[in-house]
Amino acid sequence: MPAKSENLIAWGDCDSAGIVYYPKYFHFMDIAFQNLMRKAGFGHRRLLEEFGVRVPIVDAGAKFISPASFEDRLTVDAAIVHWGTKSFRVQYRGARDGVAVFEGYEARVWATVAPDGSITTSAIPQPFKDALAAAGSAQT
Amino acid sequence: MPAKSENLIAWGDCDSAGIVYYPKYFHFMDIAFQNLMRKAGFGHRRLLEEFGVRVPIVDAGAKFISPASFEDRLTVDAAIVHWGTKSFRVQYRGARDGVAVFEGYEARVWATVAPDGSITTSAIPQPFKDALAAAGSAQT
Amino acid sequence: MPAKSENLIAWGDCDSAGIVYYPKYFHFMDIAFQNLMRKAGFGHRRLLEEFGVRVPIVDAGAKFISPASFEDRLTVDAAIVHWGTKSFRVQYRGARDGVAVFEGYEARVWATVAPDGSITTSAIPQPFKDALAAAGSAQT
Amino acid sequence: MPAKSENLIAWGDCDSAGIVYYPKYFHFMDIAFQNLMRKAGFGHRRLLEEFGVRVPIVDAGAKFISPASFEDRLTVDAAIVHWGTKSFRVQYRGARDGVAVFEGYEARVWATVAPDGSITTSAIPQPFKDALAAAGSAQT
Repeated sequence: MPAKSENLIAWGDCDSAGIVYYPKYFHFMDIAFQNLMRKAGFGHRRLLEEFGVRVPIVDAGAKFISPASFEDRLTVDAAIVHWGTKSFRVQYRGARDGVAVFEGYEARVWATVAPDGSITTSAIPQPFKDALAAAGSAQT
Repeated sequence: MPAKSENLIAWGDCDSAGIVYYPKYFHFMDIAFQNLMRKAGFGHRRLLEEFGVRVPIVDAGAKFISPASFEDRLTVDAAIVHWGTKSFRVQYRGARDGVAVFEGYEARVWATVAPDGSITTSAIPQPFKDALAAAGSAQT
Repeated sequence: MPAKSENLIAWGDCDSAGIVYYPKYFHFMDIAFQNLMRKAGFGHRRLLEEFGVRVPIVDAGAKFISPASFEDRLTVDAAIVHWGTKSFRVQYRGARDGVAVFEGYEARVWATVAPDGSITTSAIPQPFKDALAAAGSAQT
Repeated sequence: MPAKSENLIAWGDCDSAGIVYYPKYFHFMDIAFQNLMRKAGFGHRRLLEEFGVRVPIVDAGAKFISPASFEDRLTVDAAIVHWGTKSFRVQYRGARDGVAVFEGYEARVWATVAPDGSITTSAIPQPFKDALAAAGSAQT
Protein backbone atom coordinates (compact mmCIF):
# COMPACT_ATOMS: atom_id res chain seq x y z
CA MET A 1 0.00 0.00 0.00
CA PRO A 2 1.31 3.46 -0.83
CA ALA A 3 1.53 6.11 1.90
CA LYS A 4 -1.15 8.79 1.51
CA SER A 5 -0.51 12.51 1.87
CA GLU A 6 -3.42 14.96 1.92
CA ASN A 7 -3.06 18.57 0.73
CA LEU A 8 -5.45 21.46 0.29
CA ILE A 9 -4.20 23.45 -2.67
CA ALA A 10 -3.54 27.06 -1.71
CA TRP A 11 -4.22 30.26 -3.62
CA GLY A 12 -0.46 30.82 -3.69
CA ASP A 13 0.21 27.40 -5.26
CA CYS A 14 -1.50 28.54 -8.47
CA ASP A 15 -0.21 30.69 -11.30
CA SER A 16 -1.81 33.27 -13.58
CA ALA A 17 -3.65 30.54 -15.48
CA GLY A 18 -5.49 29.73 -12.25
CA ILE A 19 -3.99 26.22 -12.04
CA VAL A 20 -1.16 24.79 -9.91
CA TYR A 21 2.24 26.17 -10.96
CA TYR A 22 3.95 22.95 -12.06
CA PRO A 23 7.13 23.16 -9.88
CA LYS A 24 4.73 23.06 -6.92
CA TYR A 25 3.83 19.48 -7.83
CA PHE A 26 7.44 18.54 -7.08
CA HIS A 27 7.03 20.34 -3.73
CA PHE A 28 3.93 18.20 -3.09
CA MET A 29 5.99 15.12 -3.99
CA ASP A 30 8.70 16.20 -1.54
CA ILE A 31 6.03 16.67 1.15
CA ALA A 32 4.60 13.22 0.39
CA PHE A 33 8.09 11.76 0.78
CA GLN A 34 8.53 13.52 4.14
CA ASN A 35 5.21 11.99 5.23
CA LEU A 36 6.29 8.55 3.99
CA MET A 37 9.53 8.79 5.98
CA ARG A 38 7.69 9.91 9.10
CA LYS A 39 5.21 7.04 8.75
CA ALA A 40 8.25 4.74 8.57
CA GLY A 41 9.70 6.27 11.72
CA PHE A 42 12.68 7.72 9.84
CA GLY A 43 12.00 11.45 9.48
CA HIS A 44 14.52 13.95 8.05
CA ARG A 45 15.51 14.95 11.57
CA ARG A 46 16.27 11.39 12.70
CA LEU A 47 18.29 10.80 9.53
CA LEU A 48 20.39 13.86 10.28
CA GLU A 49 20.84 13.23 13.98
CA GLU A 50 21.34 9.47 13.94
CA PHE A 51 23.08 8.92 10.60
CA GLY A 52 24.28 12.41 9.60
CA VAL A 53 22.74 11.85 6.18
CA ARG A 54 20.19 13.42 3.89
CA VAL A 55 18.40 11.96 0.89
CA PRO A 56 18.99 14.39 -1.99
CA ILE A 57 17.35 13.93 -5.39
CA VAL A 58 19.39 12.96 -8.45
CA ASP A 59 16.53 12.55 -10.92
CA ALA A 60 12.86 13.56 -10.92
CA GLY A 61 10.04 13.80 -13.38
CA ALA A 62 6.29 14.02 -13.70
CA LYS A 63 3.46 13.82 -16.20
CA PHE A 64 0.60 16.24 -15.64
CA ILE A 65 -2.65 14.53 -16.51
CA SER A 66 -5.38 16.97 -15.50
CA PRO A 67 -5.26 20.41 -13.90
CA ALA A 68 -5.92 21.21 -10.24
CA SER A 69 -6.58 24.56 -8.61
CA PHE A 70 -6.94 26.36 -5.27
CA GLU A 71 -9.34 24.78 -2.78
CA ASP A 72 -8.95 21.37 -4.47
CA ARG A 73 -7.99 18.49 -2.19
CA LEU A 74 -4.94 16.79 -3.65
CA THR A 75 -4.15 13.28 -2.40
CA VAL A 76 -0.63 12.07 -3.16
CA ASP A 77 0.27 8.38 -2.91
CA ALA A 78 3.96 7.62 -2.40
CA ALA A 79 5.55 4.20 -2.82
CA ILE A 80 9.11 2.90 -3.02
CA VAL A 81 9.36 1.07 -6.35
CA HIS A 82 13.09 0.28 -6.48
CA TRP A 83 15.98 -0.12 -4.06
CA GLY A 84 19.58 0.14 -5.26
CA THR A 85 22.62 -0.10 -3.02
CA LYS A 86 22.94 3.65 -2.55
CA SER A 87 19.83 4.94 -4.27
CA PHE A 88 16.11 4.33 -4.40
CA ARG A 89 13.16 5.35 -6.48
CA VAL A 90 9.87 6.75 -5.22
CA GLN A 91 6.71 6.77 -7.32
CA TYR A 92 3.95 9.33 -6.80
CA ARG A 93 0.36 9.50 -7.97
CA GLY A 94 -1.66 12.64 -7.33
CA ALA A 95 -5.46 12.75 -7.57
CA ARG A 96 -8.41 14.93 -6.62
CA ASP A 97 -11.72 13.25 -5.95
CA GLY A 98 -10.39 10.11 -7.59
CA VAL A 99 -9.39 11.89 -10.82
CA ALA A 100 -5.70 11.47 -11.75
CA VAL A 101 -3.80 14.79 -11.63
CA PHE A 102 -0.18 13.73 -12.02
CA GLU A 103 2.21 10.79 -11.93
CA GLY A 104 5.81 11.36 -10.95
CA TYR A 105 8.98 9.87 -9.54
CA GLU A 106 12.09 10.84 -7.66
CA ALA A 107 15.42 9.00 -7.53
CA ARG A 108 17.07 9.73 -4.20
CA VAL A 109 20.45 8.81 -2.72
CA TRP A 110 21.61 8.13 0.82
CA ALA A 111 24.31 10.78 1.21
CA THR A 112 26.22 13.27 3.27
CA VAL A 113 26.20 16.86 2.07
CA ALA A 114 29.39 18.79 2.96
CA PRO A 115 29.28 22.50 3.91
CA ASP A 116 30.46 23.31 0.35
CA GLY A 117 27.45 21.38 -1.00
CA SER A 118 29.35 18.36 -2.33
CA ILE A 119 27.46 15.07 -2.03
CA THR A 120 28.96 11.70 -1.02
CA THR A 121 26.72 8.67 -1.31
CA SER A 122 26.97 5.49 0.74
CA ALA A 123 25.09 2.20 1.18
CA ILE A 124 21.53 2.50 2.49
CA PRO A 125 21.15 0.72 5.86
CA GLN A 126 18.80 -2.25 5.72
CA PRO A 127 16.53 -0.98 8.57
CA PHE A 128 15.77 2.16 6.54
CA LYS A 129 14.92 0.03 3.51
CA ASP A 130 12.69 -2.26 5.55
CA ALA A 131 10.85 0.57 7.30
CA LEU A 132 10.20 2.57 4.12
CA ALA A 133 9.11 -0.49 2.18
CA ALA A 134 6.63 -1.29 4.94
CA ALA A 135 5.35 2.30 5.04
CA GLY A 136 4.80 2.69 1.30
CA SER A 137 5.03 0.15 -1.49
CA ALA A 138 3.43 -0.06 -4.92
CA GLN A 139 0.07 -1.75 -5.03
CA THR A 140 0.15 -5.38 -6.20
CA MET B 1 22.23 28.25 -30.38
CA PRO B 2 20.30 27.88 -27.11
CA ALA B 3 18.91 30.97 -25.38
CA LYS B 4 20.86 31.85 -22.23
CA SER B 5 19.25 32.80 -18.92
CA GLU B 6 21.39 34.10 -16.04
CA ASN B 7 20.37 33.63 -12.38
CA LEU B 8 22.02 34.43 -9.07
CA ILE B 9 20.92 31.73 -6.65
CA ALA B 10 19.22 33.26 -3.62
CA TRP B 11 19.43 32.28 0.04
CA GLY B 12 15.74 31.40 -0.16
CA ASP B 13 16.26 29.02 -3.11
CA CYS B 14 18.22 26.64 -0.85
CA ASP B 15 17.02 24.10 1.66
CA SER B 16 18.33 22.88 5.01
CA ALA B 17 21.11 20.95 3.28
CA GLY B 18 22.45 24.30 2.03
CA ILE B 19 21.85 23.41 -1.61
CA VAL B 20 19.12 24.40 -4.08
CA TYR B 21 15.75 22.85 -3.18
CA TYR B 22 15.13 20.71 -6.27
CA PRO B 23 11.65 22.03 -7.25
CA LYS B 24 13.37 25.42 -7.65
CA TYR B 25 15.29 24.02 -10.63
CA PHE B 26 11.95 23.63 -12.41
CA HIS B 27 11.25 27.27 -11.50
CA PHE B 28 14.60 28.21 -13.09
CA MET B 29 13.58 26.19 -16.17
CA ASP B 30 10.26 28.07 -16.32
CA ILE B 31 12.16 31.37 -16.06
CA ALA B 32 14.52 30.28 -18.85
CA PHE B 33 11.49 29.47 -21.00
CA GLN B 34 10.00 32.91 -20.29
CA ASN B 35 13.31 34.45 -21.39
CA LEU B 36 13.38 32.30 -24.53
CA MET B 37 9.86 33.41 -25.44
CA ARG B 38 10.72 37.06 -24.85
CA LYS B 39 13.85 36.74 -26.99
CA ALA B 40 11.57 35.33 -29.71
CA GLY B 41 9.20 38.27 -29.37
CA PHE B 42 6.38 36.04 -28.09
CA GLY B 43 6.16 36.65 -24.34
CA HIS B 44 3.43 35.21 -22.09
CA ARG B 45 1.56 38.50 -22.25
CA ARG B 46 1.51 38.64 -26.06
CA LEU B 47 0.35 35.01 -26.18
CA LEU B 48 -2.55 35.85 -23.90
CA GLU B 49 -3.55 39.10 -25.55
CA GLU B 50 -3.08 38.15 -29.20
CA PHE B 51 -3.95 34.43 -29.18
CA GLY B 52 -5.75 33.93 -25.87
CA VAL B 53 -3.49 30.96 -25.18
CA ARG B 54 -1.03 29.76 -22.60
CA VAL B 55 1.63 27.08 -22.85
CA PRO B 56 1.02 24.70 -19.91
CA ILE B 57 3.36 21.80 -19.14
CA VAL B 58 2.27 18.19 -19.66
CA ASP B 59 5.55 16.48 -18.83
CA ALA B 60 8.79 17.60 -17.17
CA GLY B 61 11.89 16.01 -15.76
CA ALA B 62 15.48 16.71 -14.74
CA LYS B 63 18.68 15.00 -13.72
CA PHE B 64 20.68 16.76 -11.02
CA ILE B 65 24.37 16.38 -11.78
CA SER B 66 26.14 18.53 -9.21
CA PRO B 67 24.84 20.75 -6.40
CA ALA B 68 24.58 24.54 -6.46
CA SER B 69 24.07 26.95 -3.59
CA PHE B 70 23.29 30.56 -2.68
CA GLU B 71 25.48 33.18 -4.37
CA ASP B 72 26.30 30.78 -7.23
CA ARG B 73 25.66 32.08 -10.73
CA LEU B 74 23.47 29.60 -12.57
CA THR B 75 23.36 29.83 -16.36
CA VAL B 76 20.46 27.99 -17.99
CA ASP B 77 20.48 27.22 -21.72
CA ALA B 78 17.06 26.63 -23.28
CA ALA B 79 16.47 25.11 -26.72
CA ILE B 80 13.47 23.76 -28.58
CA VAL B 81 14.32 20.18 -29.50
CA HIS B 82 11.01 18.96 -30.93
CA TRP B 83 7.89 20.45 -32.51
CA GLY B 84 4.67 18.47 -32.65
CA THR B 85 1.40 19.78 -34.07
CA LYS B 86 0.05 20.92 -30.70
CA SER B 87 3.02 20.34 -28.41
CA PHE B 88 6.73 21.03 -28.23
CA ARG B 89 9.69 19.99 -26.14
CA VAL B 90 12.22 22.31 -24.52
CA GLN B 91 15.62 21.11 -23.33
CA TYR B 92 17.50 22.83 -20.52
CA ARG B 93 21.11 22.65 -19.35
CA GLY B 94 22.12 24.42 -16.15
CA ALA B 95 25.73 25.17 -15.25
CA ARG B 96 27.80 27.25 -12.86
CA ASP B 97 31.23 28.36 -13.99
CA GLY B 98 31.07 25.83 -16.80
CA VAL B 99 30.30 22.90 -14.45
CA ALA B 100 27.09 21.00 -15.32
CA VAL B 101 24.45 21.33 -12.58
CA PHE B 102 21.34 19.84 -14.19
CA GLU B 103 19.78 18.72 -17.46
CA GLY B 104 16.03 18.87 -17.86
CA TYR B 105 13.14 19.11 -20.25
CA GLU B 106 9.57 20.31 -20.45
CA ALA B 107 6.83 19.20 -22.85
CA ARG B 108 4.43 22.11 -23.36
CA VAL B 109 1.18 22.48 -25.28
CA TRP B 110 -0.46 25.39 -27.08
CA ALA B 111 -3.74 25.64 -25.20
CA THR B 112 -6.57 27.63 -23.76
CA VAL B 113 -7.21 27.29 -20.04
CA ALA B 114 -10.89 27.74 -19.06
CA PRO B 115 -11.89 29.44 -15.79
CA ASP B 116 -12.52 25.95 -14.33
CA GLY B 117 -8.92 24.99 -15.20
CA SER B 118 -9.74 22.65 -18.08
CA ILE B 119 -7.19 22.70 -20.90
CA THR B 120 -7.96 22.58 -24.65
CA THR B 121 -5.02 22.22 -27.02
CA SER B 122 -4.85 23.43 -30.60
CA ALA B 123 -2.36 23.61 -33.46
CA ILE B 124 0.70 25.79 -32.81
CA PRO B 125 0.85 28.71 -35.31
CA GLN B 126 3.85 28.54 -37.62
CA PRO B 127 5.14 32.07 -36.75
CA PHE B 128 5.47 31.00 -33.08
CA LYS B 129 7.41 27.90 -34.14
CA ASP B 130 9.70 29.89 -36.41
CA ALA B 131 10.40 32.59 -33.85
CA LEU B 132 11.12 30.19 -30.98
CA ALA B 133 13.28 27.96 -33.17
CA ALA B 134 15.32 31.02 -34.15
CA ALA B 135 15.62 32.20 -30.54
CA GLY B 136 16.77 28.87 -29.09
CA SER B 137 17.73 25.64 -30.82
CA ALA B 138 19.97 22.76 -29.79
CA GLN B 139 23.61 23.13 -30.76
CA THR B 140 24.63 21.25 -33.89
CA MET C 1 -12.75 32.46 18.55
CA PRO C 2 -10.05 32.58 15.86
CA ALA C 3 -10.12 30.06 13.00
CA LYS C 4 -7.38 27.43 13.34
CA SER C 5 -5.19 26.25 10.48
CA GLU C 6 -2.86 23.26 10.94
CA ASN C 7 0.37 22.88 8.96
CA LEU C 8 3.22 20.40 9.00
CA ILE C 9 6.34 22.33 8.10
CA ALA C 10 8.03 20.81 5.05
CA TRP C 11 11.72 20.33 4.31
CA GLY C 12 11.30 22.77 1.43
CA ASP C 13 9.86 25.48 3.69
CA CYS C 14 13.23 25.84 5.43
CA ASP C 15 16.36 27.66 4.35
CA SER C 16 20.07 26.96 4.75
CA ALA C 17 19.90 27.90 8.44
CA GLY C 18 17.54 24.94 8.92
CA ILE C 19 14.62 27.17 9.94
CA VAL C 20 11.55 28.37 8.06
CA TYR C 21 12.44 30.86 5.31
CA TYR C 22 10.58 33.93 6.53
CA PRO C 23 8.51 34.73 3.39
CA LYS C 24 6.96 31.26 3.91
CA TYR C 25 5.28 32.57 7.08
CA PHE C 26 3.30 34.96 4.89
CA HIS C 27 2.37 31.95 2.75
CA PHE C 28 1.14 30.21 5.93
CA MET C 29 -0.85 33.36 6.75
CA ASP C 30 -2.39 33.32 3.28
CA ILE C 31 -3.29 29.65 3.75
CA ALA C 32 -4.85 30.43 7.15
CA PHE C 33 -6.92 33.15 5.49
CA GLN C 34 -8.09 30.73 2.80
CA ASN C 35 -9.15 28.34 5.56
CA LEU C 36 -10.94 31.14 7.43
CA MET C 37 -12.86 32.09 4.28
CA ARG C 38 -13.79 28.48 3.61
CA LYS C 39 -14.98 28.05 7.20
CA ALA C 40 -17.14 31.14 6.61
CA GLY C 41 -18.58 29.63 3.44
CA PHE C 42 -16.95 32.32 1.26
CA GLY C 43 -13.97 30.66 -0.43
CA HIS C 44 -11.85 32.34 -3.11
CA ARG C 45 -13.77 30.48 -5.81
CA ARG C 46 -17.18 31.65 -4.58
CA LEU C 47 -15.89 35.23 -4.35
CA LEU C 48 -14.76 35.05 -7.96
CA GLU C 49 -17.84 33.34 -9.35
CA GLU C 50 -20.53 35.13 -7.35
CA PHE C 51 -19.03 38.62 -6.89
CA GLY C 52 -16.20 38.74 -9.45
CA VAL C 53 -13.90 39.97 -6.72
CA ARG C 54 -10.66 39.03 -5.04
CA VAL C 55 -9.21 40.16 -1.73
CA PRO C 56 -5.69 41.43 -2.49
CA ILE C 57 -3.30 42.55 0.27
CA VAL C 58 -2.35 46.20 0.68
CA ASP C 59 -0.29 45.88 3.86
CA ALA C 60 1.25 42.96 5.73
CA GLY C 61 3.75 42.43 8.51
CA ALA C 62 4.96 39.93 11.08
CA LYS C 63 7.17 39.59 14.11
CA PHE C 64 9.12 36.34 14.36
CA ILE C 65 9.26 35.27 17.98
CA SER C 66 10.88 31.83 17.94
CA PRO C 67 12.14 29.64 15.10
CA ALA C 68 10.35 26.62 13.63
CA SER C 69 11.71 23.90 11.40
CA PHE C 70 10.75 20.94 9.20
CA GLU C 71 8.50 18.33 10.84
CA ASP C 72 7.21 20.92 13.34
CA ARG C 73 3.45 21.28 13.55
CA LEU C 74 2.55 24.93 13.08
CA THR C 75 -0.90 26.04 14.20
CA VAL C 76 -2.03 29.40 12.81
CA ASP C 77 -4.97 31.27 14.37
CA ALA C 78 -6.67 33.79 12.10
CA ALA C 79 -9.13 36.45 13.27
CA ILE C 80 -10.70 39.53 11.73
CA VAL C 81 -9.76 42.44 14.00
CA HIS C 82 -11.06 45.41 11.98
CA TRP C 83 -13.66 46.06 9.30
CA GLY C 84 -13.48 49.20 7.16
CA THR C 85 -15.88 50.03 4.35
CA LYS C 86 -13.66 48.58 1.62
CA SER C 87 -10.87 46.98 3.63
CA PHE C 88 -10.36 44.69 6.61
CA ARG C 89 -7.55 43.54 8.82
CA VAL C 90 -6.70 39.95 9.71
CA GLN C 91 -4.53 39.03 12.69
CA TYR C 92 -2.48 35.86 12.80
CA ARG C 93 -0.76 34.00 15.63
CA GLY C 94 1.46 31.03 14.83
CA ALA C 95 2.55 28.51 17.45
CA ARG C 96 4.08 25.06 17.75
CA ASP C 97 3.20 22.98 20.77
CA GLY C 98 1.83 26.11 22.43
CA VAL C 99 5.06 28.10 21.93
CA ALA C 100 4.58 31.39 20.05
CA VAL C 101 6.37 31.38 16.69
CA PHE C 102 5.07 34.53 15.01
CA GLU C 103 2.42 37.25 15.13
CA GLY C 104 1.34 38.91 11.93
CA TYR C 105 -1.35 40.80 10.12
CA GLU C 106 -2.70 41.46 6.66
CA ALA C 107 -4.81 44.37 5.45
CA ARG C 108 -6.95 43.21 2.56
CA VAL C 109 -9.37 44.98 0.24
CA TRP C 110 -12.55 43.88 -1.55
CA ALA C 111 -11.60 44.51 -5.17
CA THR C 112 -11.70 43.64 -8.81
CA VAL C 113 -8.39 42.99 -10.54
CA ALA C 114 -8.38 43.92 -14.23
CA PRO C 115 -6.44 41.88 -16.81
CA ASP C 116 -3.71 44.58 -16.70
CA GLY C 117 -3.42 44.05 -12.93
CA SER C 118 -5.05 47.31 -11.86
CA ILE C 119 -7.11 47.07 -8.67
CA THR C 120 -10.48 48.76 -8.03
CA THR C 121 -11.88 48.54 -4.51
CA SER C 122 -15.54 48.64 -3.54
CA ALA C 123 -17.71 48.31 -0.43
CA ILE C 124 -17.56 44.94 1.31
CA PRO C 125 -21.03 43.26 1.31
CA GLN C 126 -22.46 42.82 4.80
CA PRO C 127 -23.02 39.04 4.45
CA PHE C 128 -19.28 38.56 3.86
CA LYS C 129 -18.49 40.63 6.95
CA ASP C 130 -20.96 38.70 9.07
CA ALA C 131 -19.78 35.30 7.90
CA LEU C 132 -16.08 36.03 8.37
CA ALA C 133 -16.63 37.64 11.75
CA ALA C 134 -18.50 34.50 12.85
CA ALA C 135 -15.78 32.22 11.50
CA GLY C 136 -12.84 33.99 13.11
CA SER C 137 -12.74 36.81 15.61
CA ALA C 138 -10.18 37.88 18.18
CA GLN C 139 -10.52 36.26 21.58
CA THR C 140 -12.32 38.39 24.15
CA MET D 1 22.62 55.84 -2.01
CA PRO D 2 20.57 52.65 -1.73
CA ALA D 3 21.84 49.45 -3.35
CA LYS D 4 19.83 48.54 -6.46
CA SER D 5 18.61 45.03 -7.25
CA GLU D 6 17.05 44.26 -10.65
CA ASN D 7 14.47 41.49 -11.11
CA LEU D 8 12.37 40.29 -14.01
CA ILE D 9 9.10 39.06 -12.57
CA ALA D 10 8.48 35.44 -13.53
CA TRP D 11 5.25 33.70 -14.52
CA GLY D 12 5.60 31.61 -11.38
CA ASP D 13 5.85 34.68 -9.13
CA CYS D 14 2.22 35.55 -9.91
CA ASP D 15 -1.00 34.13 -8.52
CA SER D 16 -4.42 33.45 -9.99
CA ALA D 17 -5.21 37.16 -10.03
CA GLY D 18 -2.33 37.60 -12.50
CA ILE D 19 -0.32 39.76 -10.10
CA VAL D 20 2.68 39.00 -7.87
CA TYR D 21 1.73 36.69 -4.97
CA TYR D 22 2.51 38.95 -2.04
CA PRO D 23 4.89 36.66 -0.06
CA LYS D 24 7.11 36.82 -3.15
CA TYR D 25 7.76 40.50 -2.43
CA PHE D 26 9.47 39.43 0.78
CA HIS D 27 11.54 37.01 -1.31
CA PHE D 28 12.50 39.96 -3.54
CA MET D 29 13.45 41.90 -0.39
CA ASP D 30 15.61 38.99 0.78
CA ILE D 31 17.28 38.89 -2.65
CA ALA D 32 17.89 42.65 -2.49
CA PHE D 33 19.50 42.18 0.92
CA GLN D 34 21.74 39.41 -0.45
CA ASN D 35 22.79 41.80 -3.22
CA LEU D 36 23.43 44.60 -0.71
CA MET D 37 25.63 42.29 1.39
CA ARG D 38 27.55 41.14 -1.68
CA LYS D 39 28.08 44.75 -2.78
CA ALA D 40 29.49 45.38 0.71
CA GLY D 41 31.84 42.40 0.39
CA PHE D 42 30.06 40.51 3.17
CA GLY D 43 27.96 37.82 1.46
CA HIS D 44 26.04 35.11 3.33
CA ARG D 45 28.87 32.65 2.66
CA ARG D 46 31.57 34.90 4.11
CA LEU D 47 29.39 35.55 7.18
CA LEU D 48 29.08 31.82 7.74
CA GLU D 49 32.69 30.90 7.08
CA GLU D 50 34.42 33.85 8.80
CA PHE D 51 32.03 34.65 11.66
CA GLY D 52 29.81 31.54 11.89
CA VAL D 53 26.78 33.81 11.90
CA ARG D 54 23.62 34.39 9.94
CA VAL D 55 21.32 37.39 9.86
CA PRO D 56 17.80 36.07 10.57
CA ILE D 57 14.73 38.32 10.45
CA VAL D 58 12.83 39.23 13.61
CA ASP D 59 10.35 41.64 12.07
CA ALA D 60 9.25 42.43 8.52
CA GLY D 61 6.48 44.33 6.81
CA ALA D 62 5.46 45.92 3.55
CA LYS D 63 2.84 48.15 1.99
CA PHE D 64 1.76 47.23 -1.52
CA ILE D 65 1.17 50.40 -3.50
CA SER D 66 0.50 49.23 -7.05
CA PRO D 67 0.43 45.77 -8.62
CA ALA D 68 3.15 44.20 -10.75
CA SER D 69 2.98 41.17 -13.00
CA PHE D 70 5.04 38.71 -15.05
CA GLU D 71 7.52 40.27 -17.49
CA ASP D 72 7.60 43.49 -15.44
CA ARG D 73 11.04 44.73 -14.44
CA LEU D 74 11.07 45.26 -10.68
CA THR D 75 13.86 47.42 -9.26
CA VAL D 76 14.36 47.10 -5.50
CA ASP D 77 16.37 49.70 -3.57
CA ALA D 78 17.82 48.53 -0.25
CA ALA D 79 19.24 50.80 2.44
CA ILE D 80 20.27 50.36 6.06
CA VAL D 81 18.21 52.89 8.03
CA HIS D 82 19.08 51.92 11.61
CA TRP D 83 21.91 50.19 13.44
CA GLY D 84 21.37 48.75 16.93
CA THR D 85 23.99 46.88 18.92
CA LYS D 86 22.78 43.44 17.80
CA SER D 87 20.15 44.31 15.24
CA PHE D 88 19.64 46.52 12.21
CA ARG D 89 16.84 47.66 9.99
CA VAL D 90 16.76 47.57 6.21
CA GLN D 91 14.34 49.64 4.15
CA TYR D 92 13.18 48.56 0.69
CA ARG D 93 11.45 50.40 -2.12
CA GLY D 94 10.26 48.49 -5.17
CA ALA D 95 9.33 50.15 -8.45
CA ARG D 96 8.67 49.33 -12.09
CA ASP D 97 9.43 51.98 -14.68
CA GLY D 98 9.63 54.54 -11.89
CA VAL D 99 6.17 53.68 -10.49
CA ALA D 100 6.18 52.70 -6.81
CA VAL D 101 5.14 49.08 -6.28
CA PHE D 102 5.92 48.48 -2.61
CA GLU D 103 7.72 49.82 0.43
CA GLY D 104 8.96 47.42 3.07
CA TYR D 105 11.41 46.78 5.85
CA GLU D 106 13.20 43.97 7.64
CA ALA D 107 14.70 43.97 11.12
CA ARG D 108 17.59 41.52 11.19
CA VAL D 109 19.90 40.31 13.94
CA TRP D 110 23.53 39.18 13.99
CA ALA D 111 23.17 35.66 15.35
CA THR D 112 24.20 32.05 15.49
CA VAL D 113 21.55 29.46 14.66
CA ALA D 114 22.04 26.16 16.52
CA PRO D 115 21.20 22.81 14.87
CA ASP D 116 17.93 22.79 16.86
CA GLY D 117 17.06 26.18 15.32
CA SER D 118 17.56 28.28 18.45
CA ILE D 119 18.96 31.75 17.78
CA THR D 120 21.61 33.55 19.88
CA THR D 121 22.31 37.18 19.02
CA SER D 122 25.57 39.05 19.60
CA ALA D 123 27.09 42.47 18.88
CA ILE D 124 27.46 43.37 15.21
CA PRO D 125 31.15 43.89 14.31
CA GLN D 126 31.95 47.46 13.26
CA PRO D 127 33.49 46.47 9.88
CA PHE D 128 30.18 44.86 8.86
CA LYS D 129 28.30 48.03 9.85
CA ASP D 130 30.71 50.25 7.96
CA ALA D 131 30.68 48.14 4.82
CA LEU D 132 26.89 47.79 4.67
CA ALA D 133 26.35 51.48 5.41
CA ALA D 134 28.69 52.34 2.53
CA ALA D 135 26.96 49.87 0.18
CA GLY D 136 23.41 51.04 0.88
CA SER D 137 22.12 53.98 2.87
CA ALA D 138 18.92 55.98 2.71
CA GLN D 139 18.97 58.93 0.35
CA THR D 140 19.68 62.29 1.99
